Amino acid sequence: MTKLAIVKIGGNVLENNEELTKFLTFFAALEGTKILVHGGGKLATQMATNLGIESRMVDGRRITDAQTLQVITMVYAGLTNKNIVAQLQALDCNAIGLTGADGNTVQAHKRPIKSIDYGYVGDVDGINANTISKLLSSELTPIFCAMTHDGKGQLLNTNADTIASELAIGMSVHFDTSLYYCFEKKGVLMDITDEDSVVKHIDTNKYQQLLEQGIIADGMLPKLANCFHALNQNVHQVCIGDITMINKKSDLFTTITL
Amino acid sequence: MTKLAIVKIGGNVLENNEELTKFLTFFAALEGTKILVHGGGKLATQMATNLGIESRMVDGRRITDAQTLQVITMVYAGLTNKNIVAQLQALDCNAIGLTGADGNTVQAHKRPIKSIDYGYVGDVDGINANTISKLLSSELTPIFCAMTHDGKGQLLNTNADTIASELAIGMSVHFDTSLYYCFEKKGVLMDITDEDSVVKHIDTNKYQQLLEQGIIADGMLPKLANCFHALNQNVHQVCIGDITMINKKSDLFTTITL
Repeated sequence: MTKLAIVKIGGNVLENNEELTKFLTFFAALEGTKILVHGGGKLATQMATNLGIESRMVDGRRITDAQTLQVITMVYAGLTNKNIVAQLQALDCNAIGLTGADGNTVQAHKRPIKSIDYGYVGDVDGINANTISKLLSSELTPIFCAMTHDGKGQLLNTNADTIASELAIGMSVHFDTSLYYCFEKKGVLMDITDEDSVVKHIDTNKYQQLLEQGIIADGMLPKLANCFHALNQNVHQVCIGDITMINKKSDLFTTITL
Repeated sequence: MTKLAIVKIGGNVLENNEELTKFLTFFAALEGTKILVHGGGKLATQMATNLGIESRMVDGRRITDAQTLQVITMVYAGLTNKNIVAQLQALDCNAIGLTGADGNTVQAHKRPIKSIDYGYVGDVDGINANTISKLLSSELTPIFCAMTHDGKGQLLNTNADTIASELAIGMSVHFDTSLYYCFEKKGVLMDITDEDSVVKHIDTNKYQQLLEQGIIADGMLPKLANCFHALNQNVHQVCIGDITMINKKSDLFTTITL
């Protein structure tokens, strides 16, 4: 099976032009078949403010009303995605920017209203591995932003970590798939105040142990849940760390296996 | 050779939700291989106003400074393009939204400064017929917005009529290509006050005659120039009219040949 790297880039890297260029240079140089997934949270918040639209967050998740969805479509699928694509083209990476609506690549449904109405937020139903494989075999590198669609004409705001793990799961039918969650830290840290205290390997037992110790907490909880969700569905391995892990220039990052 | 229809949709159709839905329903039902090209002028102007950015036009052409380019990227490549894609998906048309940067499909250079500095405006150098053919043979329908790139990381605002004619020229190497300029009128009118006074057929001689009579004037001048530019470079035929011409439900539209 051909190897496929799915790389999710975190918001803090995206929002710093210098860090973004450094990341894209690493990503473009990465050999073999690859996919990039990005969100773009803070820029959307800023644009919403500029347009006089109030951003409402509940537990770190954005409430996406109709106006906010417009802003997200403009920022994620327009400004952020197309600038990444243009920069990658300049680095000789034949990038193609996508939402889940493009080529019907990521299908979702609007999250049902329970205690909170998240608005136009999508929960992923599945990905279209055949179409994505055709793009990859055309030597294109798909760049997914954090948007999906419901197949009935509605675009939906969707968590980028989830899109990355669902892509990894779906593509593992055709490829030997590795999933990289790339952010500003070097990996999962034993001590949050010590940047070098990276836990180099986490398996199912270690995961339970770190959960009990409270080492995995806050934003790391859903990220690690996504990792094990992917691993349990045939994804080869998941790595968490900064850009240097992608081409293994540094060995200081977290590898996660079952 | 397989037939290919390249359809350019005008701004006035785009900006009216009811007309847009009607158009997209026609477009989705169109049999065979097809490509859609759109701009999105007025919505970009409105969004720029909402963001406190002044829109400057010279001879009907937008001066694209850095801030305006951001707005155009958000509106053309984001809001307009992705809503068209999502709506087409709901109509069982497997649409994929593109700028010229995506897959390096439309290459351009920044227009040189002469008497007027148009800013980040692109003049098309060529299209990537191989990549577009691969998308078409993957049964995808490309939806191009009016943006290109210079291959050095710079996105460029580019006239949608020009993108459509350059796509038609470039794709005519692989396909028997027809180009449709679709707008709110039924075609080229002999009498601008009479909606039904459509000139049904224009060839090179008739074109000269209409130019001399002043029938082809204003916005029709660059459009017709684009048509003959395409016809002179192996495009099979060009049609100008409203949505009903696309599936030949009406015979009241303008056909242009050499």
